[in-house]
Formats: sequence, C-alpha cells, structure tokens
Amino acid sequence: MRILLINPNTSAFVTEACADVARRHVAPGTDIVAVTASRGVPIIGCRTENAIGAAMTVELAAEHAEGCDAVVLAVSFDSGLAAVRELLAIPVVGMSEAAMLTACLLGGRFAYLTFGSRAVPLYEELIQSYGLGRRSAGVIALPMLSPAELRDPARVAPPLLQAVGRAVEERGAESVVLGGAVFAGLADRLKPQSPVPLIDGIAAAVRMAAMLAATGFAKPRAGSYRHPTKKPIAGMADGIARLYGRLPEA
Amino acid sequence: MRILLINPNTSAFVTEACADVARRHVAPGTDIVAVTASRGVPIIGCRTENAIGAAMTVELAAEHAEGCDAVVLAVSFDSGLAAVRELLAIPVVGMSEAAMLTACLLGGRFAYLTFGSRAVPLYEELIQSYGLGRRSAGVIALPMLSPAELRDPARVAPPLLQAVGRAVEERGAESVVLGGAVFAGLADRLKPQSPVPLIDGIAAAVRMAAMLAATGFAKPRAGSYRHPTKKPIAGMADGIARLYGRLPEA
Amino acid sequence: MRILLINPNTSAFVTEACADVARRHVAPGTDIVAVTASRGVPIIGCRTENAIGAAMTVELAAEHAEGCDAVVLAVSFDSGLAAVRELLAIPVVGMSEAAMLTACLLGGRFAYLTFGSRAVPLYEELIQSYGLGRRSAGVIALPMLSPAELRDPARVAPPLLQAVGRAVEERGAESVVLGGAVFAGLADRLKPQSPVPLIDGIAAAVRMAAMLAATGFAKPRAGSYRHPTKKPIAGMADGIARLYGRLPEA
Amino acid sequence: MRILLINPNTSAFVTEACADVARRHVAPGTDIVAVTASRGVPIIGCRTENAIGAAMTVELAAEHAEGCDAVVLAVSFDSGLAAVRELLAIPVVGMSEAAMLTACLLGGRFAYLTFGSRAVPLYEELIQSYGLGRRSAGVIALPMLSPAELRDPARVAPPLLQAVGRAVEERGAESVVLGGAVFAGLADRLKPQSPVPLIDGIAAAVRMAAMLAATGFAKPRAGSYRHPTKKPIAGMADGIARLYGRLPEA
Amino acid sequence: MRILLINPNTSAFVTEACADVARRHVAPGTDIVAVTASRGVPIIGCRTENAIGAAMTVELAAEHAEGCDAVVLAVSFDSGLAAVRELLAIPVVGMSEAAMLTACLLGGRFAYLTFGSRAVPLYEELIQSYGLGRRSAGVIALPMLSPAELRDPARVAPPLLQAVGRAVEERGAESVVLGGAVFAGLADRLKPQSPVPLIDGIAAAVRMAAMLAATGFAKPRAGSYRHPTKKPIAGMADGIARLYGRLPEA
Amino acid sequence: MRILLINPNTSAFVTEACADVARRHVAPGTDIVAVTASRGVPIIGCRTENAIGAAMTVELAAEHAEGCDAVVLAVSFDSGLAAVRELLAIPVVGMSEAAMLTACLLGGRFAYLTFGSRAVPLYEELIQSYGLGRRSAGVIALPMLSPAELRDPARVAPPLLQAVGRAVEERGAESVVLGGAVFAGLADRLKPQSPVPLIDGIAAAVRMAAMLAATGFAKPRAGSYRHPTKKPIAGMADGIARLYGRLPEA
Repeated sequence: MRILLINPNTSAFVTEACADVARRHVAPGTDIVAVTASRGVPIIGCRTENAIGAAMTVELAAEHAEGCDAVVLAVSFDSGLAAVRELLAIPVVGMSEAAMLTACLLGGRFAYLTFGSRAVPLYEELIQSYGLGRRSAGVIALPMLSPAELRDPARVAPPLLQAVGRAVEERGAESVVLGGAVFAGLADRLKPQSPVPLIDGIAAAVRMAAMLAATGFAKPRAGSYRHPTKKPIAGMADGIARLYGRLPEA
Repeated sequence: MRILLINPNTSAFVTEACADVARRHVAPGTDIVAVTASRGVPIIGCRTENAIGAAMTVELAAEHAEGCDAVVLAVSFDSGLAAVRELLAIPVVGMSEAAMLTACLLGGRFAYLTFGSRAVPLYEELIQSYGLGRRSAGVIALPMLSPAELRDPARVAPPLLQAVGRAVEERGAESVVLGGAVFAGLADRLKPQSPVPLIDGIAAAVRMAAMLAATGFAKPRAGSYRHPTKKPIAGMADGIARLYGRLPEA
Repeated sequence: MRILLINPNTSAFVTEACADVARRHVAPGTDIVAVTASRGVPIIGCRTENAIGAAMTVELAAEHAEGCDAVVLAVSFDSGLAAVRELLAIPVVGMSEAAMLTACLLGGRFAYLTFGSRAVPLYEELIQSYGLGRRSAGVIALPMLSPAELRDPARVAPPLLQAVGRAVEERGAESVVLGGAVFAGLADRLKPQSPVPLIDGIAAAVRMAAMLAATGFAKPRAGSYRHPTKKPIAGMADGIARLYGRLPEA
Repeated sequence: MRILLINPNTSAFVTEACADVARRHVAPGTDIVAVTASRGVPIIGCRTENAIGAAMTVELAAEHAEGCDAVVLAVSFDSGLAAVRELLAIPVVGMSEAAMLTACLLGGRFAYLTFGSRAVPLYEELIQSYGLGRRSAGVIALPMLSPAELRDPARVAPPLLQAVGRAVEERGAESVVLGGAVFAGLADRLKPQSPVPLIDGIAAAVRMAAMLAATGFAKPRAGSYRHPTKKPIAGMADGIARLYGRLPEA
Repeated sequence: MRILLINPNTSAFVTEACADVARRHVAPGTDIVAVTASRGVPIIGCRTENAIGAAMTVELAAEHAEGCDAVVLAVSFDSGLAAVRELLAIPVVGMSEAAMLTACLLGGRFAYLTFGSRAVPLYEELIQSYGLGRRSAGVIALPMLSPAELRDPARVAPPLLQAVGRAVEERGAESVVLGGAVFAGLADRLKPQSPVPLIDGIAAAVRMAAMLAATGFAKPRAGSYRHPTKKPIAGMADGIARLYGRLPEA
Repeated sequence: MRILLINPNTSAFVTEACADVARRHVAPGTDIVAVTASRGVPIIGCRTENAIGAAMTVELAAEHAEGCDAVVLAVSFDSGLAAVRELLAIPVVGMSEAAMLTACLLGGRFAYLTFGSRAVPLYEELIQSYGLGRRSAGVIALPMLSPAELRDPARVAPPLLQAVGRAVEERGAESVVLGGAVFAGLADRLKPQSPVPLIDGIAAAVRMAAMLAATGFAKPRAGSYRHPTKKPIAGMADGIARLYGRLPEA
C-alpha cells in the first residue's frame, strides 16, 4: 500500500516529522510518500492561509495521487479535505478529522489542544463543520512557542500536560487531541504522563486511511462526492488540468 | 463609495449580470468595480472548484481591493469569504450570506433554491457554517438548465415559481433565497408572482456591504479576523505578496 | 423615506437618544418619526414588562405606521417584533436582531452586553429565538448603573471596555453588541478604544430597515407573516381596531 | 385548592369547554376559577393576536390570581406564560407546555396537531422556545374547520384520527398532543381509537399545576423569575397597578 | 392507587429513604410498594453498574409490577427507564427525568447537582438523551461524602447551598435538581434557605407517576413503546419469562 | 492480535456470520474469538431486550476478555458499549458506532438502514447519543423479512438497493450504513450495484478495534471511562465478580 501524505505548508521539516510518525503507524510494506507545498506559507495560521493552503492541497493531490491508495492531509485545519475527497477516487483523511473520530471511539468528549489563541475559532468551526460539536469539550490554546521551543520536549511537555490536566478537571475531557502537525510524535512520548489518552492526528489519519483503503470502498457514482464533471478549466496546475481532462461528461 | 464585486469564476457574462443588479441596488455615486477570475472554471459547481475558487477570491481581492470601501462576493458558495474578510480592512459580504441574513430580517424560515441536485449538500453545509440551520426550511434543487435556458425568463419562471410554491406549502418557508449568481435579477422580475419574498443575493450583498462601509467599523485588532501576521510567503500572486509584505509583525 | 422608531417604554429621554443616533445613520432626506409609549414602565426590565411592552409596540405601530416606509423597535428585547412584522405591510426591524445580524456579517461569534444580570436569560432566549445560538459568545452583564451614571461616558466607558476585553479573551467574541437603548450612541464614541467592533442596535436597525424598504419586498401573501384575517376585535386601541377593520377576510 | 384558568381570548364558550375538562381532572375539593378576556379576539390565531393575548393574560392574572394556588393558561400558544410565571408567587402552567412535557413522560417524540396551517410556524417556535425541538416529531395541520364543525365529534374524529395515523407512520410520533383549546375534551373521547396516547393540554396543565402547588415551591428570590422590582407603571389595568404597588424595591 | 418504587441498587436504606419521601408526596390511600435489588452494587456509580442496574430494574419491574398502577425508578440514572416503559402497560417515571421536567415547569434552565465528579458525564448524557440540553445550566459535582456524612444535614447543607448559590450566580440556573436517591428528602429541608427552587427527584416522580395513572393513558399499540413481541427468551428471571410468555405474537 | 467478538443475542448463526466477516477484515495472524449469549433473546429487537442485552454484553466481556487485545460488539444497538469500554482496559468498539464513524470518514451524511420500523426510534436515539445527529440523513426501515429470507441475497438485494437509491435521491445520503448483524457480509456482495458506499458494521468495527489496539492507548486514569472503583457486588456472574475483585479502591 502507498499512502500520499500532503503538507500544504512550505515547511519541509514539518513534512518530515509527520512522515516519521506516519511510518511508525503503518504496516510493514506500506509506503509513505510525503510532499510539501512549494508555494504558500511555512505554517498555515489563519483563514487566508487556510484558503490558499486548501487550493495547494488540491494541486498537490492532483499531481501526486496517481499510484497511491489513500491520501492523508498533514495540516491541522484539514485544508482542502472535502475537495480532494471529491476529486480523487481513493480515500482521503484529514489529521484533525481522524484524531477527533478516534477520540469518539475512545468514548466521551475530547479537548482539542493548539498553540496560540488566534486559531481557536478556526478549530471550533472545523469541529462544527464535522458535526462533532456535541463531542467537543472545547479548544484549548497553549501559549505560542517558537519553532525551536516546539522541538524541545523538555520545553513543551510541562505546559502541555498542565493543559491536559485542566481539560480533564474543568471541562470533563476524556481524551485530548494534539491538534497540529507541530505536535507530531509528541503523543507517543507524553502518553505515560497523561491521565487520559493523547491522540496524534498523523497516527490516527494514516491508520484510518489504511483501513479505508484495505476495506475497499468504490468511488461514489452519486451524491456530492462523486467525480466532478468535465468542464473547461483554465490556468490550473498540470495535475489538476490532467485530472479534469479525464473526468466524465456531465 | 466604491464596491469591489468579485466573481471567482471565469464567466464574464455572470460578472456582468451581477454587476448590473448591483448597480440597481446602490445609491447614486456608488461605483461597482467588477472583476472576473482569469483562472479556474466557468461556473463553480463542486467542492474541488469551490476550493480553487476560494483561493482565486483571495487573489482577486488582494489585487483589486485597494481604493475600495467594501467587497461583495458574486458566487453562491461565498467561496473564500472568511479569508478575505480577515485579509482586508474593509467589509466583505458574500451573496448567499447576505441573502440569508436578509431572509432572517423578514421573519421565519427561508428556503434556498438552486439548479441541480449535486450542490445541495454544499449549500446545506454553508447554511450550517453560518450557524443558520434553525432558520433554514431546506435547500431545494430545480432541474439543471443549460446556460441558454437560464437566461430565458419564460423558461426559468415556471419551474422556479412552482418550487417556491412547494417550499411554502410543504416546508413552511416564509421567504425564498434565489441562490446563485445565475439567478441575478430574477427576483425583481418574478416577485409579483411569488406569494413570499424572493431574495436576490447580489442585491442583498451590495446593500449590506454599503451599510457596513457607511457605518464605519474599524478593522479588529484582536480575534481571528484581525490582520494575518507577517510571514514569508512564496509563489503567490503579486497582490497577495504585496499585502503580506505590509502586514504587521506577529 | 420615513422610518417609524417605536419605544414601547415610557421614557421619552430614551426615545430621544435613540432618535438622535437613528438620524445620524440614515441618508439625507430620510425622516425618523419617534414615538414613546404613554402606558407601561420607564424601562422594560423583566418578562412581565416585556409582555406589556410587546402589546404596546403593536398599539403604537398600528397608530403611527401609516405613511411610514419601515419600522424600527427601539427596545433591546425587540418586544412585539414578530407581531408588528405580521400586522404591517412594511419592513419591521428590532434593534437587537439587527445588531446580531450585523455581527454575523462581521464574522465569528458576538458577545451581547447588558447592564444588570436579571435580564441575561431573556437575552439568551432572544438569541435562541432568532436561531443564532451558534453565533453567540454569551451574554455578559455589567453591574447595573443608575440612569444618571449611564449618561456619563466617563463612568460607563471603563467597565464596558473591560467587559469587551474579557469577552474577547475569555469567550472568543469577535464583535460586541451593545444591547439596549441605554447604550445608544456609545458605540460610536468608544469604538476607537475597542479591539473588536462595537455594534449599536439603533444604528444597525435603521440601516437595515432602510435597506429593506429600498429593496422593496412585497407583503407576503402566504405563510405566517401574511396579514391577519379579519375578525371581531374588542376593546383595542383605535389604531389596532382601524387596521383590523381593513384586513382581508379569512 | 383553587386553580385559576385564564382564557385570554374573548370566547366564553371556549373557556367553558376548558373549565369542564379541567374539573374532570382535579381532585375533589379543587375549584376551577375560569376567566375570559373582555378585550381582544375570539380565538388567537396569529402573532399579532398572540402579543395582545399575552398582555391580556398578564392583566387577567393580576386581577384574579389572589386567593388562588396555581394558574393554568387555556390558550394553545401559552400566551404570556413566562410573564405571569414571573409576576405571581404561585405556579403557572401553559396548556401546550404541559401537554408536551406529559408527552416527554410517555417516551419518544410527540406530534403536535392543530387546525389550519397558518399557525404551524408559531407552534414550531413555541416548541423551540421550550428547548424541546429534539422531542418533536413535527407540527401537523388539519384542514381548518368552522367552530360549529369543531364541536361535532363525528365531523372532527375522522380527519383527526387519520392525522394521528400519519404522524405515527410517517414521522415516528409516539404520542400526539392535541394542541388548542378547541380540542378540549376530544382526547378522552377519541383515545380508544388511537394507536398512541392523545394528550389534552388542559387535562395535562391542571394536573401539573395541582402537582406543583401541592409540592410547595417557594417563589424564587434570585434569577429571572423572581418578582419584578417596584417601578412607576402608568396606564395599566387595576390588577397590574395593584401588584406593582406591592413589589419589592430594586 | 399503588405505585411501585424500584431501587435497582442493593442498599435497602436508600430504598427506605426514597419510600419515605414518596409517601409524603402521594394522596391519602395511595400505596408505595418499594423493592430493592438483591443483586448488583450498593450504589450505582459508573457505566458498568448502570448497565447492570438497568437489567435489574427490568427484572424487578417484571416481578413486582402486577397490581400496581405506576412505577417510579428510585435511581438517579433512571437506569432501565425506557425498557420498563416499553415492557409494562402502566406509566413508568424516572426520578431524574421527573425532576428535570418539573424544573422545566418552573421556567428557565436548571442545574443538576451530584456528589463526586466521576458521574458528571453520565448525567450530561442523560440530559442529552432526554433532549433537554437547552434547558440545562450544567451538572455540578459536590465533593464526594461518605454515606454517614450524607445522612447528616449539618454536614451536607453548607456545601450544597454554596453550590446552589454558584449555580445561580455563575450559570444562570433558575432551579436546582438534587440528583440522586441519596438526596431524598433534602429538598424539603433546605428549601427555605435556597434562593431558587430545589427539586427532589422522588417527590417529582411519584407525583408525575400518579398524575399519569390518574389521567389514564392506554398502552400504545404502535411505535417503539408498544409491547415487545413474543419470542423465545432464555435464562431470564421468572417475572420476565412470565411477561414474555403473555406477549402478543409479532 | 486477538479480538473478542461479543454477540449478546442467543443466535449462534448470527455470531458465526459476524465472525466470518470479521475474519475477512483482519490482518493475517489476528484471531477472532466469538462468543454468544446463553441467556436472553435470539435477536434483540426492542428496548427491553436492549437493556437485557447490555447486561449480557458486560457479563460476556468480563468472562472472555482476558488475553484479548480489543472487543467488538456484534449487535446493531451497540448494547452495553459504554459500560464495557469503562470496565475493561482494552479498546471496545460497537458495530454501529464504527460504521457511522467510517461513514463520517467518507464525507457527508449517512443513511442508516434496518429491517422493520419498530426499532427506528432506537437507532435515531443511538445516533443522537453519539452526537452524530448532524451527520445523519435518517434511519430507513425496510419491510421486515424472516430469518430465512434474510439469508437469501436474491430476496434481500432488490428492496435494499431500492432503499439505498431512495436514501440518495430523497435524503441526500452520501453513504449507507447497513445496520444490524443480519446484514453482515451483504455490503461486500452488493457494493458493485450501489451508487454510494455501503458500510458493514462488523467490518468497520474489527478494523477500528485493531487500529486502536495497535496504536496503543493506555487505560484512562481519570474521567468517566477509568476503571470502576472496588465495591461489594452481589449475585453477578463469575467474570464480573472476578473483575470487581481486582478493581482499585476508590
């Protein structure tokens, strides 16, 4: 099996960190093909960048999906998820979506943890867009750290575990989603110290993507996730143009 | 006052039709500056095209907003609305959003009318994303018509008025949103025959945009709609690069 | 254009303050006709007074709407809104409703600010009744001030701006509705000091009423907002009796 | 025990029918004191009349509640319920509210039956205002009948039972609320023929009012249902003026 | 009238305390038949015990309901409520359900009070399962007390009244449900000191059960609360086997 | 890996059918240990049987979980899911829960298909209990078939595919959950003929259970899914008594 991992940010080090986690969570023989955006911002952090990132996800998916069995989005806003799910014939899973659905499987309500308060409403809207508001115990913002600090577990662990504790005590969270590609790998390292499950979005997403691919769901032939219909498309990246050229007539 | 009307589709005739309606609904002396995407599809009709269109909206807004007092999105999915609202310092209004909020002002629940069933879930999700599910009487799909048929009122009016009747009788709709740029101008023409108000998204949006601009709301300095923070941005259109260059530091 | 501004309280000074704000927010040539209840309480502050006020709104509307193009309710509970919207053939807008819908146009969730905790549940129920619960960041009560204090900006500004700050920090509010006729005019004065938009209900309502009137929506001929049917009515004020006398047969 | 039954309509025959049902559902020794509005309309049927009726309910309650142990509102819109509940120190129960809560006690979702489609949105909004949307299987309108027809069981029973059947089959209703004072007494007569429980609002309300009175809940001293505070009140009916004169200072 | 009070816990002293309260809240001549589980745990405190308790409720109901007119569940999780309501032909009322619906009748939102934080999510889910989320002001956990402490009013009253105060001030609660059989009788004792109504689940449940029995609702013949259909049943307690033997064929 | 598959019904042929499907959906080397209830009913079909079945699930889990890595519930009501998830230290997944979450991963709203209308409200309540109401396109009942008919694909396929078609056309379903152990294996056989994905609950559940077990989530030490606390337990099956004997003190 071959899983395409798309990072619509321009930060290759994030892609690498996510791919590492992904490789630890797939069966032997499954390849992770990781791609990084060449245009856009290093780390998507607001609505503008999310819109740009979503289009970049579509572009990267169209370019690289051929020969893959499933796609994982390595961006905590799941930017472009619904679009790519519609465009391709293979399963597509977002890292936040997968983490939240994994939390559902563990029971009760989950807290969603992020760095910096700016994006809190975006995550709340993401949760609502998945219809999972009733399962959410809230989005919790840790103080923003620098990239260097984020890579230092000794620096990250204390505030993170404290936030987990508060999520459990004050909000009744029964699990905690570590939302964001920057958290990749942290859940495995910190879980012995957490009173409730910590969920890594990349781990959840590659496992769910593999599961869907192995189950074998055919591309829908009806509804809003069936293939787009063929139409003239102008000025798009080669991959998109090529895919559109092969689409069925309306 | 100068209002920028953005059509992230590549169909100039749609832009023209919308601009015509817009001009009929602004005060004398207000200019409508209408722009059309040079890349993308003629008419956005699915999730993929919506993601592409949202990025195109951001690009067009960044390129053309300077010197304008407000922005109106002339696309029924309001593609890129939240992003542009965040990016710019002037009010930004989507045509479907404005139509629905106008419906709220008229009282009761509104039906949302569209051509073709494929996009029904997209409009339902749009309504949910605005938190307006409780005001919705449902999204109703008319059979898809060709562009030529759409421009012929004698062809469009009968099925449309019949759908309005059913929305009122069967779903308790107290108003009907004519969702989609292709409907631009139809509401004015058909309203004498409709038992409940018909709402034109473009008319609603330019009026609301003008109202916000005239009231004079300052750009938020906090929250998720404040300006993005400056960061390296690569490979983006000139307008976006220029705007990002001027953003405040984090 | 002529807009009827109804204050179903007996406090003429509140009517005046609201009419002043209204006049600053209409186009030249638009008249504001402001009327005050002769019966009832000085300031509606509870459910009983809200019920009495709603009937008073109906009475004042029936008496004074003739020759007007739209109605604005200058009472933060929008007392009697749905009734008058049904009774008259012209647009009717409530000040809280308009402020909340304006907040929706600015994006994200709004906080609703009021003086005194007693009415907090009433405002929460009002928000729910408009189906806007998902857009609300909560109703926040400032300590009650005396009428004299309320008219002293130096006294009102500090606690109000502090509450705005907390609404943004703790509740993720992206705008703040200053709910209540007593706030009329404050938004304009305090907005330079607020990190997010402050919304004045009267300003929002007159602008939206003018917009609806200018768009030209016909009175519904179906649904629950069409005219009441003629029936014997006893002991009502002259205006209501007169209107009922002209209603269509069932 | 003495229960005040308030009909804010001017139709004495409706008051009588409701009082009859009420008397069959109270313990021996409990008196039903039934009062009818002297002003307003014969049967409240729309939003305007509901607003007028609510104020009338307040007036009648203030005038007649002294010496009573509980109040029942004999009007299907529960017009004025929250206001009177706040104003008086004794329990106040609305007939639709009581019927719906009784339906909850029987399990599953209830259908709400009414005559004529005009008021369907009003009942839907009433259900929402009680926070009972999730328990509702919908509001179903029977064709409107004349008062004479309504009093003829042979005329009413067939369409009503047919509607009950459809509510069960098509909407999954597990009980049916006969909404409206005009239905008073019908539930008892038709229940042998119904596959699911039929709920009479008056029967439910007097039983619940008696239950609350017997349990002995004190008037709240905090929150939004405590007594209004004393304030100048002008031009109100004697009963209201008298009650306001006795209220506590703020 | 004869009301069966089922305690699916094995603590006879809880059954006694509940039966005492029940007897104070029924009309003269009404018998309370109280039964206690012989298998299970002393006090249900978690999901496992709730599942076991629900089956025990079914068993006790099947064994003891014959000759009774209604059933009350004396367990704060209402364990087995829907099952017994379906199985028997008489009304069945849960103590938490009845307390919450009584709170609805008093107006506004209720807080639900319990000892120990572990079960807070269970009560939140219970409230949701009744579709009453919009009426809830939250579930509040008091520090866990020992059984001996729980029986000492001087020990229980101070933290409880303090929690009531906070529920009113911080959460806008307009009434407080004392959730749990261990609270039985406390509401009557503490109500003079509470600013808002305190609701005793047992008192509410027996009154509502008596009300339903007196109204006389027939067993549904359609829907999901009609009798189960006859089928082979193995290894069940005698009462259940006997009831199943008498059920109608599918 | 060893997965315990629990059928709390007494029908061994259902267990076998489910175990067959399960074995086709696990990795080589994973064992499926399938157990059937010795007490209860052949097929759970109502609320009473669901309550009995839930307790049976707890009993079977306590008896057989030792040495297993995860548990799957082979009953469409997921009877006892939350209880067993709390009681054991290994992942527990219900077949309906897993099918619905898989549907979420495919995008849009799912229809839930079942045989016979009686249980429709139970499935609706199950969906609500998972907080997935916004993702549901409704529960659809096929006419009830006999066990023999259910095992004949030629008999089952036509009505089932017709129902799928209607779910897509009329309700906007983008996938269909085949709810119920009786459907086990049908999805694989019918999927070439379905326009949208058909989801088999057993396949979904074993895959998700394996995924959770492989990820390695520790038993929560806080919240409502941590182990129950030790307490005297009477009259329970050996497995439960044994587990309770090993629980930690409160």
